[in-house]
Amino acid sequence: MARPIVNPGNIDFDSAGRRDYFVRFEHPTLWAEYLMPVTVFVGPEAQKGHGVIAIGATHGNEYEGPTAIRHLASEIRPENVRGRIVLIPTLNVPAFNAGVRDTPDDGKNLNRVFPGDAAGSITSKFADFIYTHVFPQVHVVLDIHSGGDVARFELVTSFHHVENAEQHRAMEETARGFGARFTMKYQNGTPGLLTATAERLGKITIGSEFGWGCAINTQGVSMTRQGILTAAIRHEQLRGEVPPNQHFAREKQILVDNSELSCYVNAPFDGHFEPTCYCGDFVKAKQRIGYHHDWNHIDSAPAEVLAPHDGYVICQAWKAKVIRGQVVSVVSRPVPWSN
Amino acid sequence: MARPIVNPGNIDFDSAGRRDYFVRFEHPTLWAEYLMPVTVFVGPEAQKGHGVIAIGATHGNEYEGPTAIRHLASEIRPENVRGRIVLIPTLNVPAFNAGVRDTPDDGKNLNRVFPGDAAGSITSKFADFIYTHVFPQVHVVLDIHSGGDVARFELVTSFHHVENAEQHRAMEETARGFGARFTMKYQNGTPGLLTATAERLGKITIGSEFGWGCAINTQGVSMTRQGILTAAIRHEQLRGEVPPNQHFAREKQILVDNSELSCYVNAPFDGHFEPTCYCGDFVKAKQRIGYHHDWNHIDSAPAEVLAPHDGYVICQAWKAKVIRGQVVSVVSRPVPWSN
Amino acid sequence: MARPIVNPGNIDFDSAGRRDYFVRFEHPTLWAEYLMPVTVFVGPEAQKGHGVIAIGATHGNEYEGPTAIRHLASEIRPENVRGRIVLIPTLNVPAFNAGVRDTPDDGKNLNRVFPGDAAGSITSKFADFIYTHVFPQVHVVLDIHSGGDVARFELVTSFHHVENAEQHRAMEETARGFGARFTMKYQNGTPGLLTATAERLGKITIGSEFGWGCAINTQGVSMTRQGILTAAIRHEQLRGEVPPNQHFAREKQILVDNSELSCYVNAPFDGHFEPTCYCGDFVKAKQRIGYHHDWNHIDSAPAEVLAPHDGYVICQAWKAKVIRGQVVSVVSRPVPWSN
Amino acid sequence: MARPIVNPGNIDFDSAGRRDYFVRFEHPTLWAEYLMPVTVFVGPEAQKGHGVIAIGATHGNEYEGPTAIRHLASEIRPENVRGRIVLIPTLNVPAFNAGVRDTPDDGKNLNRVFPGDAAGSITSKFADFIYTHVFPQVHVVLDIHSGGDVARFELVTSFHHVENAEQHRAMEETARGFGARFTMKYQNGTPGLLTATAERLGKITIGSEFGWGCAINTQGVSMTRQGILTAAIRHEQLRGEVPPNQHFAREKQILVDNSELSCYVNAPFDGHFEPTCYCGDFVKAKQRIGYHHDWNHIDSAPAEVLAPHDGYVICQAWKAKVIRGQVVSVVSRPVPWSN
Amino acid sequence: MARPIVNPGNIDFDSAGRRDYFVRFEHPTLWAEYLMPVTVFVGPEAQKGHGVIAIGATHGNEYEGPTAIRHLASEIRPENVRGRIVLIPTLNVPAFNAGVRDTPDDGKNLNRVFPGDAAGSITSKFADFIYTHVFPQVHVVLDIHSGGDVARFELVTSFHHVENAEQHRAMEETARGFGARFTMKYQNGTPGLLTATAERLGKITIGSEFGWGCAINTQGVSMTRQGILTAAIRHEQLRGEVPPNQHFAREKQILVDNSELSCYVNAPFDGHFEPTCYCGDFVKAKQRIGYHHDWNHIDSAPAEVLAPHDGYVICQAWKAKVIRGQVVSVVSRPVPWSN
Amino acid sequence: MARPIVNPGNIDFDSAGRRDYFVRFEHPTLWAEYLMPVTVFVGPEAQKGHGVIAIGATHGNEYEGPTAIRHLASEIRPENVRGRIVLIPTLNVPAFNAGVRDTPDDGKNLNRVFPGDAAGSITSKFADFIYTHVFPQVHVVLDIHSGGDVARFELVTSFHHVENAEQHRAMEETARGFGARFTMKYQNGTPGLLTATAERLGKITIGSEFGWGCAINTQGVSMTRQGILTAAIRHEQLRGEVPPNQHFAREKQILVDNSELSCYVNAPFDGHFEPTCYCGDFVKAKQRIGYHHDWNHIDSAPAEVLAPHDGYVICQAWKAKVIRGQVVSVVSRPVPWSN
Repeated sequence: MARPIVNPGNIDFDSAGRRDYFVRFEHPTLWAEYLMPVTVFVGPEAQKGHGVIAIGATHGNEYEGPTAIRHLASEIRPENVRGRIVLIPTLNVPAFNAGVRDTPDDGKNLNRVFPGDAAGSITSKFADFIYTHVFPQVHVVLDIHSGGDVARFELVTSFHHVENAEQHRAMEETARGFGARFTMKYQNGTPGLLTATAERLGKITIGSEFGWGCAINTQGVSMTRQGILTAAIRHEQLRGEVPPNQHFAREKQILVDNSELSCYVNAPFDGHFEPTCYCGDFVKAKQRIGYHHDWNHIDSAPAEVLAPHDGYVICQAWKAKVIRGQVVSVVSRPVPWSN
Repeated sequence: MARPIVNPGNIDFDSAGRRDYFVRFEHPTLWAEYLMPVTVFVGPEAQKGHGVIAIGATHGNEYEGPTAIRHLASEIRPENVRGRIVLIPTLNVPAFNAGVRDTPDDGKNLNRVFPGDAAGSITSKFADFIYTHVFPQVHVVLDIHSGGDVARFELVTSFHHVENAEQHRAMEETARGFGARFTMKYQNGTPGLLTATAERLGKITIGSEFGWGCAINTQGVSMTRQGILTAAIRHEQLRGEVPPNQHFAREKQILVDNSELSCYVNAPFDGHFEPTCYCGDFVKAKQRIGYHHDWNHIDSAPAEVLAPHDGYVICQAWKAKVIRGQVVSVVSRPVPWSN
Repeated sequence: MARPIVNPGNIDFDSAGRRDYFVRFEHPTLWAEYLMPVTVFVGPEAQKGHGVIAIGATHGNEYEGPTAIRHLASEIRPENVRGRIVLIPTLNVPAFNAGVRDTPDDGKNLNRVFPGDAAGSITSKFADFIYTHVFPQVHVVLDIHSGGDVARFELVTSFHHVENAEQHRAMEETARGFGARFTMKYQNGTPGLLTATAERLGKITIGSEFGWGCAINTQGVSMTRQGILTAAIRHEQLRGEVPPNQHFAREKQILVDNSELSCYVNAPFDGHFEPTCYCGDFVKAKQRIGYHHDWNHIDSAPAEVLAPHDGYVICQAWKAKVIRGQVVSVVSRPVPWSN
Repeated sequence: MARPIVNPGNIDFDSAGRRDYFVRFEHPTLWAEYLMPVTVFVGPEAQKGHGVIAIGATHGNEYEGPTAIRHLASEIRPENVRGRIVLIPTLNVPAFNAGVRDTPDDGKNLNRVFPGDAAGSITSKFADFIYTHVFPQVHVVLDIHSGGDVARFELVTSFHHVENAEQHRAMEETARGFGARFTMKYQNGTPGLLTATAERLGKITIGSEFGWGCAINTQGVSMTRQGILTAAIRHEQLRGEVPPNQHFAREKQILVDNSELSCYVNAPFDGHFEPTCYCGDFVKAKQRIGYHHDWNHIDSAPAEVLAPHDGYVICQAWKAKVIRGQVVSVVSRPVPWSN
Repeated sequence: MARPIVNPGNIDFDSAGRRDYFVRFEHPTLWAEYLMPVTVFVGPEAQKGHGVIAIGATHGNEYEGPTAIRHLASEIRPENVRGRIVLIPTLNVPAFNAGVRDTPDDGKNLNRVFPGDAAGSITSKFADFIYTHVFPQVHVVLDIHSGGDVARFELVTSFHHVENAEQHRAMEETARGFGARFTMKYQNGTPGLLTATAERLGKITIGSEFGWGCAINTQGVSMTRQGILTAAIRHEQLRGEVPPNQHFAREKQILVDNSELSCYVNAPFDGHFEPTCYCGDFVKAKQRIGYHHDWNHIDSAPAEVLAPHDGYVICQAWKAKVIRGQVVSVVSRPVPWSN
Repeated sequence: MARPIVNPGNIDFDSAGRRDYFVRFEHPTLWAEYLMPVTVFVGPEAQKGHGVIAIGATHGNEYEGPTAIRHLASEIRPENVRGRIVLIPTLNVPAFNAGVRDTPDDGKNLNRVFPGDAAGSITSKFADFIYTHVFPQVHVVLDIHSGGDVARFELVTSFHHVENAEQHRAMEETARGFGARFTMKYQNGTPGLLTATAERLGKITIGSEFGWGCAINTQGVSMTRQGILTAAIRHEQLRGEVPPNQHFAREKQILVDNSELSCYVNAPFDGHFEPTCYCGDFVKAKQRIGYHHDWNHIDSAPAEVLAPHDGYVICQAWKAKVIRGQVVSVVSRPVPWSN
């Protein structure tokens, strides 16, 4: 019951069995440790550098990952583990405790500081722990996100374009295992992402957006659970049958691409965004997809928000009140699966 | 374009035509006025004490009312108005501006201070304006709410039990005009409600929950627009055909009652609520409707949240993180319509 | 040096001599007292109910009053006092300490709660002390204000219309003693004002606006000092020659009236106010007196702000950023002096 | 395990046995209830209006009361209860949850609003619950306080002067049962106190200061436990032997009085208080009991803080940084016990 | 009307015509872009590396620059542009939106981080954009500042000492074009200044202090407009007559130097600064230029603030309340113009 | 009286006599300087690199160091100084002014950024000043700390293990001069400590924990005063007799070691820590030293906190409310003194 408290470098990733740790990170100012929960399963067929890691709460107010991973931690039977499965339900512990996106202590966005720095501020220490101590143990990285307070999504799995065709194909297949209707390829220009860092290391890496609004999306929890189990079994770290797909059948799954800036519709002024279509809708170029209201000029007509091109509406601003430049809609173009 | 700025008692509710006002309320500390937008339509058949008022943003972070009412303000043609229609898209102006539920200046919840007080703090002044100057002009009161940041709803109209059977029937009919699947009768113990105050004055009064999460619900905007137009036409204040019901057909509409405390499921401890069913589901007594997670004890099993009795899940906590005593679910019992 | 700490009712206003007190008001939550500095001078000719009181920092971030009154406290020689002079340099002690307009403890504006309440919250206790214990001792009340962070003023003295012609004349004369170019009569609809309360008791009551921006205006300090000394001598509480007028000569002094709402120009939207004339300017009706910029729509033309009628610009919004409904300019009409 | 949630008026104070409740108070703005824990023990000899109540956390950051009362809730055996014992470990639930002195929701100090108001803000509702529903059930009221963040105390029990000699004697005896070295009689001018309200109703009422600094004082917890058990047994509500006094023997116990204002030493300016003696010391008039440092004038000598008269130092400011007027020391005069 | 949104490196500085951009900078945590407005005019004579840039709101609460530059953006006719004119009315977009001096997102002062860093936090990205993409296009840099909330100024233009005599002379002439009475040479020890960075690159660089107090100074707006037009015409980027000098004639203009630390008068303690002379006054060494009041010791005499040497008072603390070490006055020595 | 304001590099550490400086550090955003008080005594026997420095307020809310050092600054007679004594009563000036542990401006903990950086943020500048300008002048470094708001301590001096036996012995002797019962050797893994940095430079370096709770501990002030004087005399920088030890006699002094992680007891969950023993107690392995209460589950039994091994309880969490991972107790093992 009382988990051992260990230094970041002192996790045993190799001995057979199940181990539940608290990994200690010195609190920036209190005489205290931040304790990150890490569960390691190792089975008899474990190979060096092979394994699956599932991560929740890279952003502290996204809850489908933590919820599903916590359920899995009690469901996975150690005797069924063939290789290596690592579960980190709440990666950004102080942000999760505070119920906010970024680390309260240093104001950093953990998904912008990879590969991190063990001598940096607390957020960089968390990233460094993953980069230095966890990534070398696994070849499959599942980083479960949601839209936070900002963006409502048609539930999606996601990855970036990678050059290696085999890696790309494996990522497509792993993504489809979650059962979401859409898988999204998106621009890779933002520095410091967890997933992009893993992809560059050649890992089979999947991100997702499985809910929004700091709520818990029941479908999103289910997809997370299904996707992690499916990945663990297909990638031979867990024994058993792949669980039945409870969501969108393979033939209904759609790969979309929103790598180009033109997919992103920005708010033209501080105002209130009213969507007039739904996430998941297919829209035509110039179709009205929302109104943008300026309450500072109550007698003006609202601005019409138009689709930039044909495509699927993958995401919309969630909270009505948005700032100028905020993304109010993403219209993604369908592209063919590799096979 | 430039609206006249008038004192609360200086609105002309009687002359024919359309008038757009800013009603002035002295700012508590700045040398400034809060300017509440009020639009009045008066037609040739207007009778003393008869009219329809539609109100948005009694709580400042609920946006379906303001959005639909603003659309209606530009859609309603003065020449089609028979009686009296009053539109107040943003009742709690400072709260709406700040994007928060309660008035920032005095910390008050506008929906707890009715009938208000012209000599009280700013929130009480807003209530007094409605009670003293607006209610005497109308017999139909439509107060459009949403679940705020707290509660996700199956979209509902609502009212309380009233003794007068005719008033009750009229409220049922008016509520059904919005097209929501559910109409909710709920406990009337909370003091200071806008709607309960209107009901006690014998007004045909409808509340609603047409969205949540400080977002804009597209269905909720549509229902608000349909319901206000339908009420205005049916109650003979507006000319024309009742608009077609774009939502739930009359025979699919359900009246539910959650007046009893046993309908409300409270969180047993500070934690994270994970729903395992959906708003609108019919559940059986003792059925599991969610989990309640305590991340302070990560290795404990989550608590099961059970339905207290058979009924429809009308509402669930929206944000995952809830405090002890927070309502995480409301299970309402179906009851027959009056006719 | 160490001032005695006394209860509000325990000040000696009658014995001859000078006494410096700290008046104690129980802190709302700390085990502490707020200590209000009060200095009382009593001379040999003191009469019951006659005396001059000068008050600073009714709003905590207005500094000309406190500064000039503190200088006077060391300049007035007890042997020159004929009647009764009371000096309260910092009336709202916690607001002055915090450097903010309103009382931090209860959020109240001290100049809106008169006559106060000894059993109310701390702000009401301060008002009650003045109303119950100080007003009965004096017949001349000088309440020195500034524009705070909100409004820049052409330096003015002020009072409201009173019915009693003698009182009115005495107020005009006392006001002119400060040497400001303008004396302002303004609307008396705001409840709870210190000065209006004193006026209704028949006191010769003067307000002022002697600076702005939480700064110290050198002219304003000089006018305050001159006006208090002049009032004390003219009203026979202090011996000596009336000090020479260092500011505007009697024939240059102008009485203006801005009792009507039409004098107040409100911001039509949240924006930035750019004045294009100066406080003290005489402007003609419809003359452009400023621009109002909306940076949320950077490519729109700024709105022109026009004078509502001929008159003097007495005040302008100080900080550029203003909210909708804020007073951005006051255009006052000149009116004749009583004699 | 799951406590029933009841309305304030629905506690069963009469049936024999033990009952653990959560008493519900509607949250001011969330769709939630504040749940106050109340435990009632009733034995076979219970009489109307007779019983002992022990209350913790009237101020939310005082922890000895909650801690000891929680221990007692698991130690008291229902079969040993003769009359009526009521335990409320955390009276001000939201303040306790937040770890602050006053109620966060309305900023009120619960120990200044008695007798409360069921229609007032949340703090007044808590007070009204005690006044209306609990006080009629008991004749002995034990309200366990600490010095909060403000004041370090030599641990004391306390009460005010009451006219009824029998009540006074009973209060002395009950106070001595806690074992503290000092019992303090103090000024009764502050309105709204829980204890003064109970005293006026003729209850045998004891307050205390059993720790400080938002910490848990081990001695204070022990005294609280001992004092409550002793009171319950002596006042015939609990069976058994009075527990042995683990603290100060009867003959070492001292009654002190600090009803006069002269006992309170106020800080002469905002500064840092350095005590040079200890709580519990007997000091002589004019003896230096501390220094008061002004770091804004680093090269000035610190002010000496002197004892106003002979007496015991019962309390000192705890945090070094104090505001002008804050109580930095209380020097209490010893007075004889009634018998 | 809808400005194109471009990356920092994608501005067209070369094609003839006028272009209005929003330059995008990824928001640190929202799914949003900060959109910086940039207007580029290019005429037929444009030469590589030659042009004038005018910048406002390097600090977000200084408004004369943004106001005048916005006016100029609508006044300058593209057909009159000979070379290259770049207008950035609000450089620090998030600080301007919030109405505060420094960037809210990372707490950085944009005028301390030059030359910036494209991989740094948001403030460094803004600086890098100017350094990397804008400076290479221009040889004249006009950075319009004000005193913010801190310092009231006699309106001045400013630059630092540079070794190159020709650059120095050109800067003097360009500075005089604004019409301010004073031009100030000041210490160049502070790292990271926008202007010092431009000066080191050999640019003709002018700073200014054209207002204070987060207000809009009408004279300051006029000087900004005049100075930018004059510079653009004199430096052959704009056709037309140099506008007439509406302010101080050339022979009344004074060059002052406050490079030495002795010019700066620091507050000796936390207190309230009362100026007793005016900005622009010539004062003699040891002359009293203000009082410094300590309200924590109300009965002490205020400290006298003395001029350190003969010179002009160029600046005074604006807000009365200052901290120990704050600059309360700058006394600058007059020095001869180069020619 | 008015201290000269100097740059960090301009202190005269060599000329005989006493000098009181304010060392200037540019304020990050105001036009102001932070002024750090530094007093230098130099006597006739001063040698290069030899001297004693005493530092207070490395953390801004620890007051025993500032208080005692300020007393010493007025007690030490320049004519008694043989070598060099440097006194810095408040090292982190902005944190001390704000009464908080870390620098408010940049959020940094000054005791984590050594050796600092003159071009870094303000906290790094303070550290750099000590490292670059002060450490080269002295061979004895006394850094007086307290437990802040977090930890109550049995008063201790402290140092880390150093390899040099002579340095180690000298540190033991210097530590014992303060008279504390315990001297603590602790883990040296935390980067950026002032003391560890000095130790690595070969300085005789002593830390301490002489109070807690933002209060002033009378014993702690006395130990600080005694220890600094003793060190100055023993290390031949001050003339005179070593002051008599007013605290624990040499034979009662105990050296303890808590370098191992097992000495630190972390809170297993967010909760309230109740100590059941006292700081300074010797406890046995597995002995209960406290309870840990979870008020979120009021009916659960509190967790027992057990001693990890035999040893002295040197420290306990002070404030009751602690977060998971916070150090609630340190149990240190006694080890022999070097001689």
